[in-house]
Amino acid sequence: MPVVGMVGGGQLARMTHQAAIALGQSLRVLATGPDDGAALVAADVHFGEPTDLETLRRFAKGCDVVTFDHEQVPGEHIRALAAAGETVHPSADALHYAQDKRAMRERLAELGIPVPRWRSASTTADVGELAAGSSWPVVVKSVRGGYDGRGVWLVSNRDEAAARLAAAEAAGAELLVEEKLPLRRELAVQLARSPYGQVAVYPVVETVQADGICAEVLAPAPGLAEPEALEIQELAIRIATELDVVGMLAVELFDTTYGVMVNELAMRPHNSGHWTIEGARTSQFEQHLRAVLDYPLGDTRMTAPAVAMSNVLAPAERPGAQPLDERLHYLFAAEPDVKVHLYGKDPRPGRKIGHVTALGDDPGEVRARAARAAALLRDGRPA
Amino acid sequence: MPVVGMVGGGQLARMTHQAAIALGQSLRVLATGPDDGAALVAADVHFGEPTDLETLRRFAKGCDVVTFDHEQVPGEHIRALAAAGETVHPSADALHYAQDKRAMRERLAELGIPVPRWRSASTTADVGELAAGSSWPVVVKSVRGGYDGRGVWLVSNRDEAAARLAAAEAAGAELLVEEKLPLRRELAVQLARSPYGQVAVYPVVETVQADGICAEVLAPAPGLAEPEALEIQELAIRIATELDVVGMLAVELFDTTYGVMVNELAMRPHNSGHWTIEGARTSQFEQHLRAVLDYPLGDTRMTAPAVAMSNVLAPAERPGAQPLDERLHYLFAAEPDVKVHLYGKDPRPGRKIGHVTALGDDPGEVRARAARAAALLRDGRPA
Repeated sequence: MPVVGMVGGGQLARMTHQAAIALGQSLRVLATGPDDGAALVAADVHFGEPTDLETLRRFAKGCDVVTFDHEQVPGEHIRALAAAGETVHPSADALHYAQDKRAMRERLAELGIPVPRWRSASTTADVGELAAGSSWPVVVKSVRGGYDGRGVWLVSNRDEAAARLAAAEAAGAELLVEEKLPLRRELAVQLARSPYGQVAVYPVVETVQADGICAEVLAPAPGLAEPEALEIQELAIRIATELDVVGMLAVELFDTTYGVMVNELAMRPHNSGHWTIEGARTSQFEQHLRAVLDYPLGDTRMTAPAVAMSNVLAPAERPGAQPLDERLHYLFAAEPDVKVHLYGKDPRPGRKIGHVTALGDDPGEVRARAARAAALLRDGRPA
Repeated sequence: MPVVGMVGGGQLARMTHQAAIALGQSLRVLATGPDDGAALVAADVHFGEPTDLETLRRFAKGCDVVTFDHEQVPGEHIRALAAAGETVHPSADALHYAQDKRAMRERLAELGIPVPRWRSASTTADVGELAAGSSWPVVVKSVRGGYDGRGVWLVSNRDEAAARLAAAEAAGAELLVEEKLPLRRELAVQLARSPYGQVAVYPVVETVQADGICAEVLAPAPGLAEPEALEIQELAIRIATELDVVGMLAVELFDTTYGVMVNELAMRPHNSGHWTIEGARTSQFEQHLRAVLDYPLGDTRMTAPAVAMSNVLAPAERPGAQPLDERLHYLFAAEPDVKVHLYGKDPRPGRKIGHVTALGDDPGEVRARAARAAALLRDGRPA
């Protein structure tokens, strides 16, 4: 059976390995250390930095295809692997649009796909100009990845903009600025595309953020009219095809009073698709493997009328807190049909350590059940 | 998180590892070699013989609980581990009834649970006596495990019985003989039981054998009346409780014109429960982990009205045959919503190398789809 190598040893690789096992495979993982979520559970683990070309070359040897659980591999390294005859999906050219927010916004704008009003932000004047055309506050984003643990900031005036620009310069990062839109909610849609060009798209979901972190995903997006859902799915297919994406593509969207706009792209399994493990006939992890191996893609239909996923964050440390294993006991006693996924990660407060998924007929009940389960797994029994 | 150690590295351990990953664990596996199905995919693999006490002692060290993917560990070794303070589920006393068919039949008969008419078979006269009370042919079984690759034989007369007894004596094996019942069909039921005594039982299924090997499992058993299903579930709960089983218990049953009788017991995840991976809210593999760890058990409800599982046997070698990976392509193209589980095993002709599961509303359609998928995965495209 083929060997898929995934660069990155986090929870996405961990859950992809679970899917690989069913397909008769064993995922090869490039992890940075033995405590990475996937390194704890996979048999075929290499260690090294994803930014080191020699490490990547060694890792790719013997893989039928190399893919990624993050966006950190430099495009020139991916090109070097491809030039050496390795099969890499997605390609450097495609992945560029998930690595570089400026390039993504430029390309989508060229394609006539709605994105928020934005511009590059090198000076306070750039930020001020964007704000003048919309209003304060504005949203400042790092063009590539993040730094200081973040990549998005709300900026309320020119002084804050100046401070943000100075911090970026110190970190060697470039910024862009965009309008803060009047959001009705956030949406996302997943699809897979194979080298052959087959596309399989999942239902559009609603993503609910808390403190800038994805907290809940509701499938299908409650109350979304079918023509609008279809339009969003077609938009995602167009992006995948125009950008020649191979593998999973997640399109994150703003649903605004001015219509739907693209916020972010990810070319890998994505948090907004974790609900598919139990909630769709084919999980995004199996689908990613099928896509990068050019297998025919799997059925994306839902397994229940309503599915809700809630992320589980590690709690703040407090005296007398129940250990995770004990909290899991409480959760299983309280909610015997909620499905749990724990990532094996060091539970630093605020870090995503797992997620829970609930299925059922009533979207409100399902959402409440998943949220209750996530809270139990975070906090344990009421104090 | 706790460490569960599973003795045996076959497909049951392989699929239990998948379930362990979701629970934040990594299954520790005792395999006999690096090509064992679970050894290919698990991070924490020990090697050694399951019949060697020192190997078992080393393996158990650092495990929170030790459990099994087969019946080969001698009871005295399990007792020695328990005496040394290791937690082992199921216990030697319980597992004895899955290892020794004579002990099982005696115990179930004591409990008033229907089993086929049987007796120990040391001499041709023993076999003849059983046959005289019923009719030829009779069924001869190895009391413990099998030999020469088998454990069950149909015996049609005294001469065949004599030959069978001679072969058993040469292999150092004991036999029993039982009546060949007029079968309507075979049924099975799975349940889990925790040390706390909680029990969770799955729907009764029909198992369809071909050439003495389980070929298909249909859930729920088609046409089984609810009172009869309930009676069988209660029978299984009674067996689990009386025998103090901890973990999964599979009860295989003959549905005969004289009523339902117990055929075999297995105290581990079992082929007749593979359908639960996608077909029930909680798979038998997750449930086994929950049971041996004394977690509250998971919901056993079905995820669809009808589920069918078909085993995939390795085909006979023939010139021009498609390799497995290519057959998988064909299957995925033909049946995008059938779920595949491949075990990573050396495909010796006739060996179980995987299974497929189909879900839907109509039992007949679901069964046909699973059978078609298994045939495609065995034979590839029509010649």
